[in-house]
Amino acid sequence: MTTYDIAGLKSRLGGIRTEENPALVKQKSRDFYWYSPTLKRQLDHVVGDIIVSPANEAEVIRTLAAAYELGIPVTPRGTGTGNYGQAMPLSGGIVLDLAGLNTVIAVQPGRFVAEAGAVIADIDKLARGQAQEVRMHPSTYATASVGGFIAGGSGGVGSITWGGLRDAGNVIRLKVVTMEAEPRVLELTGDDLHKVAHAYGTNGIITEVEMPLGPAYAWVDLIFGFDTFERAAGFANSLGEQDGIAKKNLTVIAAPAPHSYFLRHQDYLQPDSHVVIAMIADFAVDATLALARRASAELLFRSDVLADDDKKRLPPGFELTWNHTTLRALRIDPAITYLQTLYPFPDQVALAAKLHAHFGDEVIGHLEFVRFDGKVTCFGLPMVRFTTEERLDEIVRIHEDMGAPVFNPHRYTLEEGGMKQTDDVQLAFKKEADPKGLLNPGKMIAWEDPSYDYKSGKHFLFKSLAEAGVAE
Amino acid sequence: MTTYDIAGLKSRLGGIRTEENPALVKQKSRDFYWYSPTLKRQLDHVVGDIIVSPANEAEVIRTLAAAYELGIPVTPRGTGTGNYGQAMPLSGGIVLDLAGLNTVIAVQPGRFVAEAGAVIADIDKLARGQAQEVRMHPSTYATASVGGFIAGGSGGVGSITWGGLRDAGNVIRLKVVTMEAEPRVLELTGDDLHKVAHAYGTNGIITEVEMPLGPAYAWVDLIFGFDTFERAAGFANSLGEQDGIAKKNLTVIAAPAPHSYFLRHQDYLQPDSHVVIAMIADFAVDATLALARRASAELLFRSDVLADDDKKRLPPGFELTWNHTTLRALRIDPAITYLQTLYPFPDQVALAAKLHAHFGDEVIGHLEFVRFDGKVTCFGLPMVRFTTEERLDEIVRIHEDMGAPVFNPHRYTLEEGGMKQTDDVQLAFKKEADPKGLLNPGKMIAWEDPSYDYKSGKHFLFKSLAEAGVAE
Repeated sequence: MTTYDIAGLKSRLGGIRTEENPALVKQKSRDFYWYSPTLKRQLDHVVGDIIVSPANEAEVIRTLAAAYELGIPVTPRGTGTGNYGQAMPLSGGIVLDLAGLNTVIAVQPGRFVAEAGAVIADIDKLARGQAQEVRMHPSTYATASVGGFIAGGSGGVGSITWGGLRDAGNVIRLKVVTMEAEPRVLELTGDDLHKVAHAYGTNGIITEVEMPLGPAYAWVDLIFGFDTFERAAGFANSLGEQDGIAKKNLTVIAAPAPHSYFLRHQDYLQPDSHVVIAMIADFAVDATLALARRASAELLFRSDVLADDDKKRLPPGFELTWNHTTLRALRIDPAITYLQTLYPFPDQVALAAKLHAHFGDEVIGHLEFVRFDGKVTCFGLPMVRFTTEERLDEIVRIHEDMGAPVFNPHRYTLEEGGMKQTDDVQLAFKKEADPKGLLNPGKMIAWEDPSYDYKSGKHFLFKSLAEAGVAE
Repeated sequence: MTTYDIAGLKSRLGGIRTEENPALVKQKSRDFYWYSPTLKRQLDHVVGDIIVSPANEAEVIRTLAAAYELGIPVTPRGTGTGNYGQAMPLSGGIVLDLAGLNTVIAVQPGRFVAEAGAVIADIDKLARGQAQEVRMHPSTYATASVGGFIAGGSGGVGSITWGGLRDAGNVIRLKVVTMEAEPRVLELTGDDLHKVAHAYGTNGIITEVEMPLGPAYAWVDLIFGFDTFERAAGFANSLGEQDGIAKKNLTVIAAPAPHSYFLRHQDYLQPDSHVVIAMIADFAVDATLALARRASAELLFRSDVLADDDKKRLPPGFELTWNHTTLRALRIDPAITYLQTLYPFPDQVALAAKLHAHFGDEVIGHLEFVRFDGKVTCFGLPMVRFTTEERLDEIVRIHEDMGAPVFNPHRYTLEEGGMKQTDDVQLAFKKEADPKGLLNPGKMIAWEDPSYDYKSGKHFLFKSLAEAGVAE
């Protein structure tokens, strides 16, 4: 591992909070990479040299200028709730902890402006004071930062109505600081947002975010039981296509996972029930129940009729969904891991059912319904009973062979976890905004190895990891 | 025409407002049926015997009980903004004017409750005081009653987000009074709403409505110009599929109609421009303009940068769309009429372009994009240069032969204007709620002539019209 002039850095950062306590540095050098046994093996040793915690944009600029001068890598992090090692400093150096930039600057009709480190739940709380709410958030709503969501997420709760973060209109404006001798502060809107959205902070540090707000309905968690996974998926799909029903989230999980893993909801669930978990506006519950009756669904749970004690005891329904599904499974069975896949419209229900049938209990069906290019379809976050990395790769291949592209959550690079091709817009912006390649090194293959062959069947192994003795 | 015991009726309605002045009765016996030359010919003579204007539900009940006892037909009306003669009393009798039931009973988070005669704009104004708005309304927002919209409409402004009125969740609850010796007051929810929604008041009198509210964004009218109709349609379709862009309406109108007919907007328009008229949340305008630039659209108009004088002078953008498009055309060219068609997903853009090319200037393309069963597609309200009823029927047939089903606005019956088949749910409810068949006679073929053959190629001619000498 290269050593950096940390003393020189500190002398330039007078007045900015830093931390070198090894236990704390290690803690802030991690995210939820341990969801993946592959990433756990590859990244477990990764640690930064120093945490720098700027309190405002001016301190971010000073930090980047100093790091640029000294050639020290900078890996930004929000609250570290990502799953792909995206906030882990593969080449050491500075962990740029943005949690201190947490001011919610404005809540206006239809939009908010917040510093990147603001926790989504805190923004939402302020918006709710105006009968508005954050339109889209990860299942880690309570702890995730809004900047980290944009830099490392792709959608989540709310995507059944509003699509993904990549979709026009879901981010209004980003303020980004470049990694240069004299860092610039850029305001990105419209198509320019794609330069830094979901780029893991490899080509600029997001310091401020403007996003739309939606109406703050009183959401009701409904859980329906079905006797087959396909019927559950079919009902979720048709509920998703009900344009008149205001909804925020729509999930399908195969039996017996809900009963096995959702301990606090266990009394309401049965081992043989495949479930649909829906988050529906209170005024649309009647309409939803009418549809459910027609589909012979069994109503297992509705949050609006709970006793007060139960309301307090139970987590919100969305904390059973998206990556929280896997999290709850992992707490019970550490051998569980997961995939991320897409079942493309219009064959999503049949394809999901086919894959579910193909793998049986080895791959536990988990669908998250979303709007995607204007249509309702579903992503899969199936839970995998892990045996070996080879078998995991084979399961990925079988998904892709059967027509379900995989966004591999067992890879730490943007490309391997994404579209397996160079993102020219993000690469061009990195050349402009991070000419020395110091921002979050090792995460953008297009920068590190422009000739990399995504069809080689190998994993990209970043040089810092290879030097540390990590095997591909 | 049958004569009724109007004196006996009046003696039973003491205290309830009635009106027999022939000019006023004639005025209240009409709707916008004159959009159609066929309906104008068939229905021009139609007139009721008396207007009864109840002030509350109790007076509705008394009116229906008296009419039932005396065998007098009752045709309900809101503000008479329907286009299909649905509020016209084909057999004379009582015109039941519900405009007096206009109390907005409650505006709560996510919903309102109003009497059926409340004007949508008045409900909306109250909702806006709570940063909410009516989710869906006809282009006659300023004058239409909410009950009339549900009884006679199918969707409109808002349908690009929320689908149609028939979709689950778009109506929460209806209160309906039956036509019996002792009229009952029923509360309908869930699937039961289909009994009376879009039934023209043939099987019950809607007295109270509960509907969802959406967020009251600051909507901006945008008008884009394109060099071909197909490119305009393609852009509208892709804008419709942008899930992240909050939008309320999305219309395409072929050149030269916008320039010819939209006089107050004429300065912004060009004779050779096919236009897209979009109603977009202010915070999503930037994202929309970025999409438009990519589609090489010309921005002709945006309402958010107008001088105050222009803002006052110009009608809202939605008053250029839906049936207002035809209305503005009719004011300039009385020979214009229109059709109502659907271009089914997923071939909507190609099919609309094909029909546009097929007819040339005889049928002027007009598309209204909507969500329909969870997908974005478009209805057509093409403007037709009317020559003969035979040619109009031929144009309908060509549309259907080419794959675009027509909901014929030149027919006054539910079935011919709709799915051309019996609606068993509505018929069964009529048998229960209007056993004497006194509600809005002649509008439900399934009741009047159960053996009617929709494939006969003929028009259904109600006996009261035949008796009055109307030709099929």
